[in-house]
This record gives sequence, C-alpha cells and structure tokens, in this order.
Amino acid sequence: MNIVILAAGLGKRMRSSLPKVLHPLAGRPLLGHVIDTARALSPGRLVVVIGHGAGRVREVLGAADILFAEQAEQLGTGHAVQQAAAQLDDSVPTLVLYGDVPLTRAQTLRQLVQAAGDGKLGVLTVSLDDPSGYGRIVRDAAGRVQRIVEQKDATPEQLAIREINTGIIVAPTRRLKAWLGTLSNSNAQGEYYLTDVVERAVADGMEVVTAQPDAAWETLGVNSKTQLAELERIHQRNVALMLTDAGVTVLDPARLDVRGTLTCGNDVTIDVGCVFEGQVSLADGVAIGPHCVIRDSEIGAGTQVEAFSHLDGARIGAQARIGPYARLRPGAALADDVHIGNFVEVKNSTLAAGAKANHLAYVGDSTVGARVNVGAGTITCNYDGANKHRTVIEDDVFIGSDTQLVAPVTVGKGATIAAGTTVWQNVEAGALVLNEKRQVTRADYTRPAKKQ
Amino acid sequence: MNIVILAAGLGKRMRSSLPKVLHPLAGRPLLGHVIDTARALSPGRLVVVIGHGAGRVREVLGAADILFAEQAEQLGTGHAVQQAAAQLDDSVPTLVLYGDVPLTRAQTLRQLVQAAGDGKLGVLTVSLDDPSGYGRIVRDAAGRVQRIVEQKDATPEQLAIREINTGIIVAPTRRLKAWLGTLSNSNAQGEYYLTDVVERAVADGMEVVTAQPDAAWETLGVNSKTQLAELERIHQRNVALMLTDAGVTVLDPARLDVRGTLTCGNDVTIDVGCVFEGQVSLADGVAIGPHCVIRDSEIGAGTQVEAFSHLDGARIGAQARIGPYARLRPGAALADDVHIGNFVEVKNSTLAAGAKANHLAYVGDSTVGARVNVGAGTITCNYDGANKHRTVIEDDVFIGSDTQLVAPVTVGKGATIAAGTTVWQNVEAGALVLNEKRQVTRADYTRPAKKQ
Amino acid sequence: MNIVILAAGLGKRMRSSLPKVLHPLAGRPLLGHVIDTARALSPGRLVVVIGHGAGRVREVLGAADILFAEQAEQLGTGHAVQQAAAQLDDSVPTLVLYGDVPLTRAQTLRQLVQAAGDGKLGVLTVSLDDPSGYGRIVRDAAGRVQRIVEQKDATPEQLAIREINTGIIVAPTRRLKAWLGTLSNSNAQGEYYLTDVVERAVADGMEVVTAQPDAAWETLGVNSKTQLAELERIHQRNVALMLTDAGVTVLDPARLDVRGTLTCGNDVTIDVGCVFEGQVSLADGVAIGPHCVIRDSEIGAGTQVEAFSHLDGARIGAQARIGPYARLRPGAALADDVHIGNFVEVKNSTLAAGAKANHLAYVGDSTVGARVNVGAGTITCNYDGANKHRTVIEDDVFIGSDTQLVAPVTVGKGATIAAGTTVWQNVEAGALVLNEKRQVTRADYTRPAKKQ
Repeated sequence: MNIVILAAGLGKRMRSSLPKVLHPLAGRPLLGHVIDTARALSPGRLVVVIGHGAGRVREVLGAADILFAEQAEQLGTGHAVQQAAAQLDDSVPTLVLYGDVPLTRAQTLRQLVQAAGDGKLGVLTVSLDDPSGYGRIVRDAAGRVQRIVEQKDATPEQLAIREINTGIIVAPTRRLKAWLGTLSNSNAQGEYYLTDVVERAVADGMEVVTAQPDAAWETLGVNSKTQLAELERIHQRNVALMLTDAGVTVLDPARLDVRGTLTCGNDVTIDVGCVFEGQVSLADGVAIGPHCVIRDSEIGAGTQVEAFSHLDGARIGAQARIGPYARLRPGAALADDVHIGNFVEVKNSTLAAGAKANHLAYVGDSTVGARVNVGAGTITCNYDGANKHRTVIEDDVFIGSDTQLVAPVTVGKGATIAAGTTVWQNVEAGALVLNEKRQVTRADYTRPAKKQ
Repeated sequence: MNIVILAAGLGKRMRSSLPKVLHPLAGRPLLGHVIDTARALSPGRLVVVIGHGAGRVREVLGAADILFAEQAEQLGTGHAVQQAAAQLDDSVPTLVLYGDVPLTRAQTLRQLVQAAGDGKLGVLTVSLDDPSGYGRIVRDAAGRVQRIVEQKDATPEQLAIREINTGIIVAPTRRLKAWLGTLSNSNAQGEYYLTDVVERAVADGMEVVTAQPDAAWETLGVNSKTQLAELERIHQRNVALMLTDAGVTVLDPARLDVRGTLTCGNDVTIDVGCVFEGQVSLADGVAIGPHCVIRDSEIGAGTQVEAFSHLDGARIGAQARIGPYARLRPGAALADDVHIGNFVEVKNSTLAAGAKANHLAYVGDSTVGARVNVGAGTITCNYDGANKHRTVIEDDVFIGSDTQLVAPVTVGKGATIAAGTTVWQNVEAGALVLNEKRQVTRADYTRPAKKQ
Repeated sequence: MNIVILAAGLGKRMRSSLPKVLHPLAGRPLLGHVIDTARALSPGRLVVVIGHGAGRVREVLGAADILFAEQAEQLGTGHAVQQAAAQLDDSVPTLVLYGDVPLTRAQTLRQLVQAAGDGKLGVLTVSLDDPSGYGRIVRDAAGRVQRIVEQKDATPEQLAIREINTGIIVAPTRRLKAWLGTLSNSNAQGEYYLTDVVERAVADGMEVVTAQPDAAWETLGVNSKTQLAELERIHQRNVALMLTDAGVTVLDPARLDVRGTLTCGNDVTIDVGCVFEGQVSLADGVAIGPHCVIRDSEIGAGTQVEAFSHLDGARIGAQARIGPYARLRPGAALADDVHIGNFVEVKNSTLAAGAKANHLAYVGDSTVGARVNVGAGTITCNYDGANKHRTVIEDDVFIGSDTQLVAPVTVGKGATIAAGTTVWQNVEAGALVLNEKRQVTRADYTRPAKKQ
C-alpha cells in the first residue's frame, strides 16, 4: 500500500510561527504521530506532502523511509495528493491521511483498507451527535454510499444525517490519479477537493465502502491550540487507561502526563501530578510520589521516589529512596539502596550501593563508593571556571557537613572529613581530615542596632 | 445608566467570618468582579448596597467611582435597591446586579440594556434544564412577559417552564423608584422582593423585554463554598480557553489557574499545574514547566522556567534559564541569558547578562555583574541581625562554592574567590581571594561507635 | 445483626501480587473501608471471609472485633457465606457485604436493614442507565420482587429492566443458612451463587424487599486498577464536597487528595494539588498553598504554608509561615510565629516562638529558642556517622550564614555566631563566636584556561 500524509497546511489559527504539523502532542509532533501510525501499516511507499515550513518539517521528521512531495501553493486536498502522485506505486492502493489528525488508530485504518480491498474506494466515516459543518455521507436505499454533501449544499433531510466524512480514504491508485486529474476548483474556496473523488468513483460504477473508528476522537483534527489541548487530554486519558488496565495504580488518571514511553513492572504506583518524558521504565514495586517530573530514566525494583523529585537521564537501582525534592541530572547512576534526599542535586556521578546524600548537597562529576555518607551541605567543586574535574570518594567515607571537595581530588576508603572542611588534596584511606580552626570567643561583642 | 450592585448579604452558608461578597474568585473578591463588569458599562452612577461587613467591603473595594448605600437591615432585594434610590439619576435607566453573581459578561448586560431601551423593563432570563427552585417567566400567547411565578406558587404547567428569572433587571429609574415604594413584604420570608416590579410594570402597561446570556454560568450565584469552587473552575476554564484561542499552548486547560492578568506573546507554552497571580507577562517563546507558581512577574522572550519554580515580583530578560526549584523573590531583576538553577533563592538583586547561580545559593540584596559565576552553596550574608546590607559582585567574577559574602562588600571585576571562603573585605579586581587554610590529616582517627 | 464481608477473591485483573481487598483507596485498604462501614452499623458479629492472601489480610486488618472465616477454595459467593455460617448468631439477621465494594454508605445499609426488619429478605438494588451484564430485578405486577435474572438468561423484556442486583443482601440468619445448604453449582461457572437465595425466599413465601442507595457509585466494585482509579476519584470528590459544604475554600475540588482524616477550622483555604495523608488538622484561618504534601500534622491558627511544602509528623503553632519548599519531618515542633523558608529541612527539633530559618538550612535534633535567627546555609551536624546528638540554641541567638553546629553543642542565650563558623564547643551567652580567618589576596592569580 502507498500512504500519503497531507502536511502542507499553514495552520493560521494556531497563531504560531511553527508549522502546524510540528506542534507537539504528548511531546511528539502531530505529524510524528501520523507517521508512527502509517509505519504500523507497513506501507510500500510513505509520502508526506509538505508546504508551509517544509524545510523544518523535513529536518524534524525526515527519515530513510519517508518520501517528501512539496506542494508549493496550497490549492486543496486533491491538489495536495496530486503532488504525491508521481511517487505512488500504481499496483497497490493508496491511503490518504492527515498530518493534523494524530489519534487515528492503526487498527481502524486496517479495517478501512481491508474493507476497500483491491478495487473499491474506502472512506472512513464517523457518526457524530452534532454533525454540523461536516460533509454528510449520503446513501441510497440499499445503504450504498452515493455521494458526500457539504453542509452548505445539503437539503434539510441531508442535514439530519449524522454520518460524516473524515477525509481519510483509500483508493485504487491508478484510478485515484485519473480522478485527481479531473477535479475542478469551481467552488467557493477555489480549491481542489479530494472528497470529490467519491463522486467520481460512484460515476465510474466503483463500489464505495466505509469503515468507522471505535471512537470519534480518532478522527479529530487540530486547527487551533484549543483543539490541540483537547487532543492532548484525550491522548493522555488513553495512555492512563492503558496503564491502569495493565495493572499500574494511577492515583488520578486525569493528572498523569506521559510524553514518550512509560514502561511499568508489576505493582507500580504513580501518584498525582506526575509528568513522564522520553523513555522511562519503572521496575516492579516502584512508587512515584506526587508531582514528580521524570525524563529518560530507569528506576529499579522497589525504589521509592518521593514528592517533587526531578529526574532526567538517571539510572537508579533497586530499593533506593529518592526525594522529596531530589534532582537527578543526566549521568546520575545510582546503585541499589542509595538514598538521595531533599535539596540534593546529582549530576554525571555514580553512587555505589548504600551511599547516601540526604540533605542540601551538590554531587557533580563524582564517583561515590559504597556506603559513603555525604553530609548535609556538601559541595563537589567540579568547575574551576573553565574545566570540569572529577571527585572520587571511595567506599565507606564519611563526609562531614558543609564540606567542599575541590576537584580533582580523591578521598580514600574509610576516610572521615570533619564538618566545614575544604578538601583540595587527596585524602588517605582511613584518615580524618580537617582544616585546623580555632573557635574564638569575643565576649565584649555588641550587636548592631537597627538603623532608622 | 445607573448601576446598583446588591452586596449586603451575610452569606451564612459560606460559614465564614468574611462577608460573602469579599470571598475571592480567581484571587479577586466576588464583588470586585461585578464592579469590574459594571465599570465596563461606563455607568453614570455606580452604587453598591452594603450591609454585613460594610466597613470591610468599603475598605477593600472602595474607590472614587463607587457610591455606597447602607442597608442596615436585610429586608429583601427590593428594600436593598430602595436604599440606593436617592443616589440614582432619574434621567437614565437603572441596572441591578448582584455582588455574589460574579461571572455575568458585560456584553450580556449590554444586550439587556439595549433591549430595554429608554422606556421598557428588561429582565435577564436563562433557560435551565432543571429550573427547580427558580422563578419561572410566564409569557402570554404572543410571547410577552406577564409575570414571574415563584416555584411554590406555580401551577404544574408553570413548573414545566424552563425559562427562569436571574434577578438582573434594568428599569426606567423614576418608575422603578415608584414601584419600590409600593412593594409589600406579605410573603413567607417577610421580605420586599425586587422581582415584584415585573408585575408592577405589566400592570402599568410597560413592555417587559428579556435578554439571555450565551451561557447559563453567567447567572450563577455563590451561596456556599461548594458553589464558589464550581464558579472558580468555570472561570478558570474560560480563562484557559481564551489563552488557547489566542495561541497559547496549555498542556492541560483544567490544570491552569490565573488569578489576575496573564499576558502572553506568541508561541508560549504553559505546562500542567501552573498558578499565575497578579500581573504576569510572558514574552514570545517563553516556556513554563510543570507546577510553577508565578506572581507579578515579567519574563522575557525565549526564557525557560523549569518545574517547581516560584517567582514573585521578578523581572527576567530573554533567553534566561530558570529552575527547576528556583525561587525568585520581589526585586529579582535578571538580564538576558541569566541562569538560576535548583535550590537557589534570589531576592532584591540584579543579575547582569550571562550571570549564573546554578545550585543551592542565596543571593539577596546584591548587584551581580555580567557573566559572574556564583558557585554552589554561595550565601550573601545580607543581614547582620538588625540591618540589611548590599553585596556588589562586578563583571566576570568567579565565586567558588560555599563562599559567604558578608555585606556590605564589593568583589572587583574579574576576581576569583576560592571555594569555602568567608569574604568580609572588598576584593580587588582580578585578584584571587581565599582564607588561608591547612588541610590536616589525623591518621590515627577512630570513628565513634554506635551506642546501644 | 451479623455482618459477613466477602474478601477471599484473587482479583486477577488487578495484575498484582497484593490481595485485591488490600489495595488502597484513599490510603486505606478497600476492605478497611468496608470494615469501617460495617462497624458504623454496630454488628454483634463481624465475620470476614478470606482466602487469597488470607495471612496478609489478617495481618493488615485483624482486630479484636473481627472474626475471620477461611474459604480455602473460591467456589462462589454462596459458598463463601457458608464458610462464615458457623460464626453467625441465628437470632439476628445477617448482612452480606463485599470487601471490594468500598463506598457503600452506612446510612444506605441501615435503610436496607430496616426495610428487611426481622423476617424479610432485603436486597440492595440500583437503577442503571446501562444495566448490561448485571442481574435484573424482576418484579410482578404488584411490584414484588420475584427473582433475579442474569444477563444471559434474560428475555428481551427483562433485558430492558434497569434495576439491578448489587449483591448486597440482608436475610434472617437461620433461613439463610438453610438456603445456603440447598444451593447448586450447576451453572456455567460451576459456582454457588448467593443471589440464588432470592429465589429460595420467594419459593418459601418470604417477602423480598429492596432499598436503593442515593448514588449508584455506592455499589461499584473494584476488579481492576482502572476501576480502582475511578473509585478513588469518586471518593476524593465526595471528600472535597464535604469540605466545601463545611466552609473550606478548596480552589479545585478535583485536585485535592485526602488519604485519612483532614479536620479543618473556619476560613481554611486549600490551594490546588495538595495531598493530605493520615491525621491532619488545620486550625482557623490556615492557608495551604499549591502543591503541598501534608501528613500527620497539626497546623495552628492563621499559619500559612506556601507552595511545594512537605510536612510529615509536624506540629506548628499559630501565625507561622512555612515554605515555599519547606520540609518538616517527624518531630518538628514549631511554636507560634516561627518562619521556615525555602530549602530548609527541620527534623526532630523544637523551635520556640518567633524563631526563623528562612533559607537553605538543616535543623535536626535541635532545640531552638525564641527569636533565634538561623542563617542561610546553617547545618546542625547531628550525626557523627554512628550516633545522633543534640544541638541546643538558646533564645535570641543569631547564627550567621553557613555555620556548622557540631552536636552535642549548646549556644547560649543571645550569642552571635559569625558567618562561616564551625562551632564545636559550647558558646557562652551573649558572646560573639567565630573561627579566626584571614582574607588573603593573591593578585597574580591566573584563571585556568579551557582545555580542548
């Protein structure tokens, strides 16, 4: 099968400089969703018709399996498909999709394509409670599709028809090309309408068959940010439903956002207000607290992530405790039983099993050994203003509070750093290191007075 | 036109010590919304009838263009309007609004006022699926309003009427005053009802006209916190719809709260769970991450505010990066390309272009130059227990981690502060400053043992 | 009355290793909700029939007033009740409830029990818009219940019946036991159905009476995580409604989660996205900002908790200011007028009236006096790697920024600690304490260069 995706429109009502089909839904461009669906149908040729912002669309979504056709002037959907005609294989049917209709399911399209078979025209239709504005599917007494009547041309009787045209069709390719050549733009908009091929097919005696999606939202298009928001919520509701059906405890399905792929083991719990982006996997028994943001991370079995945690590019072992208010940045690799507490930032660092940084700390570009205790207020000074350097803290080290580790520096196994120490030289294993200080008392001190 | 707003009620079901009309909807008192709507109609006189909590209402909402009338005893809506009578200009009509009906649109009221013209009585009505409890609009065969029948007095036929009285009326003022003088309180509640003027008008042969709002929620009143919450959500849904219609990407319109005025440029994105208060403006291309709270702030073009940021009284330039977990307090003025990272608080400070404070820092009462790097854990010690002092950090300074800057103090251009330094004397331009320390090792150290 | 709760099912569709009835709704196991409702009816005997995960169910919910009966094989609801038969008092009726139907109200069950009285069979029924799949209540011309017809056995006429069987029944105990002995498992599932007792009662000439709940959700059961999420939201909506009806200002009832008991005084405001767990009480005038998580805490009158605060096991006095980003952990006891600001963690510490810790601090195992100012970046070093020690800070102390208090240590009344001091010896009252430091300038310093 050939698939043509129409993606040339301006999307004026989006009020944006970004081409309409590049606006993200669940973090992926609208057109990307349609391409994904098309790919699920394994088309022989996949042609995307681009126009407005063509360069940017190619740049963002171009891939080896995608052919692009340019529609320099937007003269209607029929005209758009015509631009792709030269790239279509005549020996198989052509399915036409829309870059701004992102939620159609592959299985719905498969039903349409199967219904049409080799020699029929297939139209995806849907029955709406309020069909106003859409082209109605007019059938004869035997139920055969005769034509599609636009709202403005419809008789009162036709206006009462609730079955409408979604615009998605599949047609024998050679015939489709022939019909496209005969389209006229003698209409109010001065456009060549793809819909007119239905009439051509009937006139040619070709049977017109229909299929319907399970849900009307599969056929909704995006013309404004309001509609984009509506489809975003429909999509997120579907994602949440898939997760709960699969056994994930989701405290509020209406307050879950998944922008990418979220893979969950058994007995996973996700509290309210969480946002997942990119590729995230949660192993068995993981519990994510309220209001967490997690991107491109892997979380091991039994690990608890508490409220307000922000994870990006992190790998976390089993039985770890993260948060609340933990920030894990790319390259944070935490082994089993690691604890990262409140107001702690970890970046590009490995922490071995049982290591803890429970309070107010910055661990960057570090290798932290097993069972290390990173005291409150500890800072790895990894940046000298020009370059980043590494801190190595070996197993069983105890870092006192408010310590600065000036990288590059190594703290040997089992060493202890006193509170408030600046460490810039390597520390021997087992040693206690401190900066010598005196605690001086000035008994005659008078506090400053409040100035007027 | 005169406008009278009835705002004397107790609001017993609110179960609050605050007068009902002062309860906030979208951060503004209910009565404030009605006053705003009234002002949009440019009334010659605007009279607010107050009673319960009169002093507090005057205090919160008093303004040069508002006349107050006191209703000492609450004897009904008719009685309430009568208290305002002396302040009404007889030569123009009088529109009566309610301080606890906050969402009526000015355009709806304009239609009512226009329908009534100079010599008719206008009643705002609305058709409800379930009209139970409301006064029904009884019309004659020609569709002319004859009277309003209360629920308890209605025949079965009248009970089936779905068009109800909202209580909002506009009337010729002289006639209104005359009718008010004839009202009776011979009813179950012992109150003087404004509604009874409709009957007076019909009896006097005055035409009674009606107008209807676009949406039924325009006429909803607040009698309980449950209703207040319902109207809050309706209002917020409307605000979100205005924003998405205008081209703002709102990830979830049901999870956006705007309490004040939010002005957005092109290509602005607002993630889930954000709360905006006061006057906030977001320039072109601004992206606000999930769960941010932003109050009285201006954010420049292309700036990204990441999750869990809390901004209040901040001005931020273009292309800045804020958060996650950034706290900007009043007087934070950030130039272009400034980066404020996690667990950083900025208060009453200016940061010039390209300055960065990426981790765990407190910058208060400071002037920070261009390209300054404020290291992790840096604290400006601006408070001596009695007075606040200023820290000046000139361009291109590098502040090492865990530094204390004891204000008043100036760090000269291009200076470097070593990690863990207490700075209490001014620093020369270009210099390196540190506290001399020795890193002492005690090899014979024995860790304390766990006590039983 | 006897109450039997059926709680033996596997809950395969939950896709979990946890027994179905232990899955939490609002933080409490499903079965716990049913037990609470049962207790509200003061049954003479309360028998819970357990099977899958019996040991764990006993462990989690066992109590002195609960008898357990084991159903080794799950052979149907009739068989389940039979396992409890020996423990039922014949002289009073028996009410049968379900461990996976958590939201039935006690008052609904009381109506059912009253309707049945001493000698009738009572069935809780409910009318559904879509009754598909449920057993229909077939009545005779006089409205008397004749039988319950399962979906698959129903005539088209019976399929149109919208009143369905909820499974909840109350029956005279002796008769119930007799009927249970006569049940057959000659059906598609090979199970003994409790529902069949209705037919037995009719055959025996016993009157069958019905009661209906106010809301259909009272009878919803949980068979999947999708249904669990639905019931969670219904329950939370009910809780929010109770709060707003009682006068609490809830900014968005759809974004409030109460898992336990939330007690509110007058004029309490709760902003969006808050989660309450365990026992929480908010006194008069408390305001909770957006996105707070509060567990097992008491908050005094007029106290404001700002956004992103996380409280667990905290007691807070009146007029305190907490957050944003404040973390209070178990044992945090704050007197009136205490201020805890951003990125501050308090654990197992008392703070007397007027004490402040406004920025980036860790206060653990401490006793903090009145009016103490804990400077930004202050850390109480309470842990020596093996034991925890206490820090005592007496009244009116001023702790300079970035100070470490190495416990055990006492800072006397009115003392001042200079910024950046490590304090390991007790400090005299009124004294100024500091570590002697020199601020050294190296004018010839050259910054490191960026390496390629």
